[in-house]
Amino acid sequence: MDQTGGRATRRPREATERRRAEILRAATAVFGARGYSQGSLAEIAERVGMTHAGVLHHFGSKEQLLLAVLDGRDRSDLEQVADHRLPEGLELFRHLARTAARNVDRPGLVAAYTVLSADSVTDGHPAQAHYRERYAHLRGLIGTALREVCDPATPPDEAALDAAAAGVLAVMDGLQMQWLLDPVRVDLAGSTAFAIEALLAAALAGPSRPRPLGA
Amino acid sequence: MDQTGGRATRRPREATERRRAEILRAATAVFGARGYSQGSLAEIAERVGMTHAGVLHHFGSKEQLLLAVLDGRDRSDLEQVADHRLPEGLELFRHLARTAARNVDRPGLVAAYTVLSADSVTDGHPAQAHYRERYAHLRGLIGTALREVCDPATPPDEAALDAAAAGVLAVMDGLQMQWLLDPVRVDLAGSTAFAIEALLAAALAGPSRPRPLGA
Repeated sequence: MDQTGGRATRRPREATERRRAEILRAATAVFGARGYSQGSLAEIAERVGMTHAGVLHHFGSKEQLLLAVLDGRDRSDLEQVADHRLPEGLELFRHLARTAARNVDRPGLVAAYTVLSADSVTDGHPAQAHYRERYAHLRGLIGTALREVCDPATPPDEAALDAAAAGVLAVMDGLQMQWLLDPVRVDLAGSTAFAIEALLAAALAGPSRPRPLGA
Repeated sequence: MDQTGGRATRRPREATERRRAEILRAATAVFGARGYSQGSLAEIAERVGMTHAGVLHHFGSKEQLLLAVLDGRDRSDLEQVADHRLPEGLELFRHLARTAARNVDRPGLVAAYTVLSADSVTDGHPAQAHYRERYAHLRGLIGTALREVCDPATPPDEAALDAAAAGVLAVMDGLQMQWLLDPVRVDLAGSTAFAIEALLAAALAGPSRPRPLGA
């Protein structure tokens, strides 16, 4: 006790940060395994050897803990890239394909994201604004990257750009769910790269893109 | 009461079917609004003016009711097509694009599907096998349709076919979620058609498909 107490006194901020990080890892695992509404603070607290009240001391409420888990995931993705900012142009699409390849090694985080993002469409869900804004922000970034790489002489129309941007995020989300359900039969990294290239090629082709359905 | 009783006696099976259909509609709305674990049998029962026990009399358990909701959705999709079977070849892709256009008019059902399918990745979820098999079945149908429409002289490799099949389902699911969160900014019908055409064009192009990422 003396030793731990001594360290905590020397570096109280570090100890608090370490504690918060432990709680966030436990919350990610529990929300991923049970969903937000079924994942209990009691189970999260038990995993880190704390009381329910101890967890609340660090995060205030279950909702705040959820939002901290979501922010932590976004930050962890950004830590992989230069300057901690998403890259632009074609590099953005390579980054997204690489993210899918990294996700193969973190199914707990992917499950938490899959369950929570879908949960957020339910009435009054605490993460609804988070996800609405997150998708709008990412569609904007992808749309900008698409404009950068398209031939200015034959740009796609705005509707096609919007569709391609939404489609890239959609196919990443949907493939994660299929992969979680069936990791043997679904190749998360390969199928995500295929789909991103297909959507990108359709946008790059501009108004003359192939229309096999005649739509 | 006499009149209703008389009708029920004359056509007991019809009355039961009507009752079951009412419960399924209420369950779809409640699961769509609250998710499976938060959606209660009590609320579903209240919506149809029955008791909790009355609902259980018709469906046995909450899990059975959930699976009946899911089967009902699949059947409702099939009722829109000739012979109540999914079409083949290019027509399958046109059907999927039309399904997205129809979904714009049934956000409750789409929300129930979005929440329940994502929920199903959690540990021990009662609908996990349902969704695993459903996706495997649909990927198989789409893969077959792709083989039918590809030029036999330059077929895509198997990995590309699998990726395109998984991608079509994934982009439909992911766009539904973005649309539920933000129906003003996301064009569900238009972006689904764009993405299906993009994935189809990539598969049809065979080994010489455009690879803007150089992957």
